[in-house]
Amino acid sequence: MSIEEYADVTVVGAGLAGLVAARDVRRAGLSVIVVEARDRVGGRTWNRPMPGGWTIEAGGQYIGPTQDRLAALAEDVGVETFPTHHEGRTTWRGARVPETFELARPVLDELDRLAAQIPGEAPWRAERAGEWDAETLHTWLSRRVTEPTTMALLRLVFSAVLAAEAEELSLLHVLTYIRSAGSTSMLTDVAGGAQERRFSGGSHLLAIRLAERLSSPPGADGAGADGGGAVGGGGVRLDSPVRRIRHGRDGAVVEAAGRSITSRRVIVAVPVALGDRIGYEPGLPGRRQLHQRMATGVTIKIHCRYEEPFWRAAGRSGSALSPEEWVSAVFDDSPPDRGHGVLMGFVVADRARALARLPAGDRRSAVLGSLARYFGRQAMRPTHYAETDWSTEDWTHGCYGSNLPPGAWTRYGPALRESVGAIHWAGAETSAVWMNYMEGAVRSGERAAAEVVAAVAGVPGGAPGRPGGTTE
Amino acid sequence: MSIEEYADVTVVGAGLAGLVAARDVRRAGLSVIVVEARDRVGGRTWNRPMPGGWTIEAGGQYIGPTQDRLAALAEDVGVETFPTHHEGRTTWRGARVPETFELARPVLDELDRLAAQIPGEAPWRAERAGEWDAETLHTWLSRRVTEPTTMALLRLVFSAVLAAEAEELSLLHVLTYIRSAGSTSMLTDVAGGAQERRFSGGSHLLAIRLAERLSSPPGADGAGADGGGAVGGGGVRLDSPVRRIRHGRDGAVVEAAGRSITSRRVIVAVPVALGDRIGYEPGLPGRRQLHQRMATGVTIKIHCRYEEPFWRAAGRSGSALSPEEWVSAVFDDSPPDRGHGVLMGFVVADRARALARLPAGDRRSAVLGSLARYFGRQAMRPTHYAETDWSTEDWTHGCYGSNLPPGAWTRYGPALRESVGAIHWAGAETSAVWMNYMEGAVRSGERAAAEVVAAVAGVPGGAPGRPGGTTE
Repeated sequence: MSIEEYADVTVVGAGLAGLVAARDVRRAGLSVIVVEARDRVGGRTWNRPMPGGWTIEAGGQYIGPTQDRLAALAEDVGVETFPTHHEGRTTWRGARVPETFELARPVLDELDRLAAQIPGEAPWRAERAGEWDAETLHTWLSRRVTEPTTMALLRLVFSAVLAAEAEELSLLHVLTYIRSAGSTSMLTDVAGGAQERRFSGGSHLLAIRLAERLSSPPGADGAGADGGGAVGGGGVRLDSPVRRIRHGRDGAVVEAAGRSITSRRVIVAVPVALGDRIGYEPGLPGRRQLHQRMATGVTIKIHCRYEEPFWRAAGRSGSALSPEEWVSAVFDDSPPDRGHGVLMGFVVADRARALARLPAGDRRSAVLGSLARYFGRQAMRPTHYAETDWSTEDWTHGCYGSNLPPGAWTRYGPALRESVGAIHWAGAETSAVWMNYMEGAVRSGERAAAEVVAAVAGVPGGAPGRPGGTTE
Repeated sequence: MSIEEYADVTVVGAGLAGLVAARDVRRAGLSVIVVEARDRVGGRTWNRPMPGGWTIEAGGQYIGPTQDRLAALAEDVGVETFPTHHEGRTTWRGARVPETFELARPVLDELDRLAAQIPGEAPWRAERAGEWDAETLHTWLSRRVTEPTTMALLRLVFSAVLAAEAEELSLLHVLTYIRSAGSTSMLTDVAGGAQERRFSGGSHLLAIRLAERLSSPPGADGAGADGGGAVGGGGVRLDSPVRRIRHGRDGAVVEAAGRSITSRRVIVAVPVALGDRIGYEPGLPGRRQLHQRMATGVTIKIHCRYEEPFWRAAGRSGSALSPEEWVSAVFDDSPPDRGHGVLMGFVVADRARALARLPAGDRRSAVLGSLARYFGRQAMRPTHYAETDWSTEDWTHGCYGSNLPPGAWTRYGPALRESVGAIHWAGAETSAVWMNYMEGAVRSGERAAAEVVAAVAGVPGGAPGRPGGTTE
């Protein structure tokens, strides 16, 4: 019935975290098989081909300062970066937004100060962790801000960054998030922040090239040809959702659709909430409870293509922000080397939930109305229009990343990274640095691989050990 | 490879909700197949056989006033009830507990008053829903209670009832929960409350008898013989975890391990969080987000059997309560007609998480220490000892029921019950009355069956329609 395979290590999930983990495991001389539920690699990075012959970056796409492991990966696989277009004025909509930012600044500064008190690797050990985890961001903000437009702006900042509303978020989660990135401005800024640069050819190329290498013989690591769509052979088994992992101290059997893989260690590298779709034998009570609490954000990513980046002529950068619009945040997403212009925007949290309930025509009108109010009537007539609603993706559940409500970090925080028997955990959510970002994914893959290599090296028959590859 | 079957209706989950739904669907003249992941029916009701030849009720076990549909089911399948032993003094541990209850009373009364303002069928429509859903129970309590023992007692009440801590709970969730039961005292009381009576032979018999009937030919409904362990043939397919449901307006295909069932309607009757282990095509964004947010409680249920119910001779009822003990709440669980005595206790929420981290011997010592402080040294020497930790059960994830953190009821409340295309939802969590209780499960099954029967009757080829049963 099903194919039986063996590898030293099985990686569940062929997103950035899983593929980086597989790369490092293999570099340590161990054999590895990656299983992936989808028919493609890349997870939440995706060069999505659209009708009309254009491609959008439907998922994570930026790289910023301090995202060093992501930069190293890009260099490793030969993907270049270029700066996000940001020259010109930022466009605001709503009552006195720039002035309101000044009013909001002390609150953001206080959050930065509190965040700095958090031990990055163990937020639950912060001196005031219990207090911060007992309330929502909303109740905390409400004690500090009474002026409605300031509150609206602060809510906008966090909903745009976390894809969740202030009522849904533990204050400790928000502080942990800020801590993991460094500061609120690192999270929000283009120049000097998380949105500073983009990848030539799209961030998806990182995963595609990593997967191609896994298909090459071990040792040919640097020589993987860029085979385009031909990923998924060799080391990556696509269309293989994992149903169950039977595990113990010395090994595990991963049961996926159509195949069963025995290995010494397993790295589960999927969004935390997705980890709940797998059965574990024996059960993992702590981790299971974490899965149940960590919900993905809700984001609809919008792309509009125009004959040219018309906003630039008007002195606008293409960056826009408003607490009053369907599209909360907009960026210039034009290709660096071509004539046409692209505006990319995020509809998040409550606005995304409301937008998703509208029929397609009304959604488009709502989005284009927002863009027109930001940039003028020309924005109403894109040559191409695309929406990516990640909450409809069966193997993602939502984007950008995942968040914890009150009471969870202090109770289940350690379960985020602690291995259980032969099972190790990776994925952007599990990183103490740049949690939920591509940088976090890469770091988590590197960390999980190091754990596995150390564990296997420490036991008889350790690395480099059995002949690698499959026994298909 | 897999067996292909057809029925008018497929029910996912053979707990009380699913089996009641199947009964009602079949009574309406439609054919039905129930698929169940476990090797038994009953879900969170379970006559669990223990080493040493005794059986415990490991899950839900009580019936109280206003639980009318559960009472009707018991009568329907011929299961008797008897009163929970409650004569004698309640045992308190901790500083001035009875006096403290007087201090806590105004807070409980206020919660009852607020709960009464909630429209039971639509908590998200309460006038103050947004406000109540924006904060945790903890922050609300903290504004009202400063005296530490009063706070400890109030926290005990809600952790014992909801199996979660005040920091984890939306105030709106707590109010909705109180509203669904009627009042806080309905939730907490033995006499006149949710713990008033028990089922002769165990609550599990309800599910077992319902399943037996489904194995009989249609029409022989009242005549199902009590076949004991022989459930699971006929209408119930055991060991059949559902992987995927492909669905549309007019029907659905349920793909379970080893079988594929085509039907006009599907009733998913599993705990909400478990619904997330199924793939849906097309995706169900709103429901998926609800799944991710609704976490099961954490409970370890304890049973200690003694030669006799020795506490009764000391004038104690066997009911005990303490904010300071491992075992927060204890009840006399002795069989009505035999000489020996049984104490049943709940270790909940933070205490359960801490207890689960101890080795087995230490857990037992901790639990027996609690019982000894309640009832004296005799409690240290049970003839039989049992723990049931529901969070280790792969097809339950936790008990008693499920709870929502802040921000979820107002955003995803409607998704709890709203059918999507051919998929309908049942399960104790989905009931507006006695949510999370067996009564809620029964009501949800009846409601989902009525929805399905109305939907099928309303279309050409409606009920009673195609020849029922399987095409195995």
